[in-house]
Amino acid sequence: MTKKDKLTGPTVKAIPEGDILPRLVCPDCGFINYVNPKIVVGAICEWEDKMLLCKRAIEPRLGYWTPPGGFMELDETTAEGAQREVWEEACARVEIGQLIGIYEIPHISQVHMFYHARLTSPEFAAGPESADVALFTEEEIPWDDLAFSSGTWAMRRFYDGDESVGHTLGDLKPKF
Amino acid sequence: MTKKDKLTGPTVKAIPEGDILPRLVCPDCGFINYVNPKIVVGAICEWEDKMLLCKRAIEPRLGYWTPPGGFMELDETTAEGAQREVWEEACARVEIGQLIGIYEIPHISQVHMFYHARLTSPEFAAGPESADVALFTEEEIPWDDLAFSSGTWAMRRFYDGDESVGHTLGDLKPKF
Repeated sequence: MTKKDKLTGPTVKAIPEGDILPRLVCPDCGFINYVNPKIVVGAICEWEDKMLLCKRAIEPRLGYWTPPGGFMELDETTAEGAQREVWEEACARVEIGQLIGIYEIPHISQVHMFYHARLTSPEFAAGPESADVALFTEEEIPWDDLAFSSGTWAMRRFYDGDESVGHTLGDLKPKF
Repeated sequence: MTKKDKLTGPTVKAIPEGDILPRLVCPDCGFINYVNPKIVVGAICEWEDKMLLCKRAIEPRLGYWTPPGGFMELDETTAEGAQREVWEEACARVEIGQLIGIYEIPHISQVHMFYHARLTSPEFAAGPESADVALFTEEEIPWDDLAFSSGTWAMRRFYDGDESVGHTLGDLKPKF
């Protein structure tokens, strides 16, 4: 099987017994494909006065720079996921610090969480999804060539030095 | 189709092309069942000096009390999800306030997020998953009959009055 094959999978929309929302159900075996929002975990990684960024080797935003990050996997904490993503995308080992913030993107059903992290040594290299990995001072960062608004938000928050956990809520602002 | 039918669905473990982890794949159609951690959203709901709790009518923890909460759905923010869960489980309308905290449970791949909320009127009733819904002062709360440790943690944090966003990390403690 390759990615090019046309996959069938669950194709029938139906409300399962005891549920309140329609889900996609397989017409052959009855499997219910529950899909929920996904968590993306990333890290703002420091080495001395520099920040580690990856140049994307894949779509979306191929060729643009981003802090390492990706989908959280089963059986890990958000911090462990961020640490794993740094290793996969930048071949770098980090200690994980405080949570910088939560950035919600409801129209694509994603919740992004970024950690402060520190490289344990200045060793890094491009993982399979990166075309390049480099350290930048704040002035050197390619601010106009960053891949995602959530990463940019976390980087700015890091430089602002606010140590509280940030949270951008998307549509619904807190009423009090 | 009922819940009692034996469902097949994806049953073959394989690493899809371009992936690094094994996923469950359907042996018939090739559908890849990507499963990621789920977000549970809940609300600590105030009315005057009381807190709204639901007595669970379903497993797990049937008969125990909990702040209203449940799985975040697609196309909503975490705050909107918490507001929706209050409506579904307690038939109550709330305004959503600040995020109280994040409670991670990696061994079941869940990330719980609790909001501070205020009822817009003292009207509530048991939704389909609740056997009872009631308002309690802090002294009246059935602390020994609460359903989940994450809910208890959020309730205690609310009464402690700490307005920062709490975060219990599970296994991995921040190094700095």
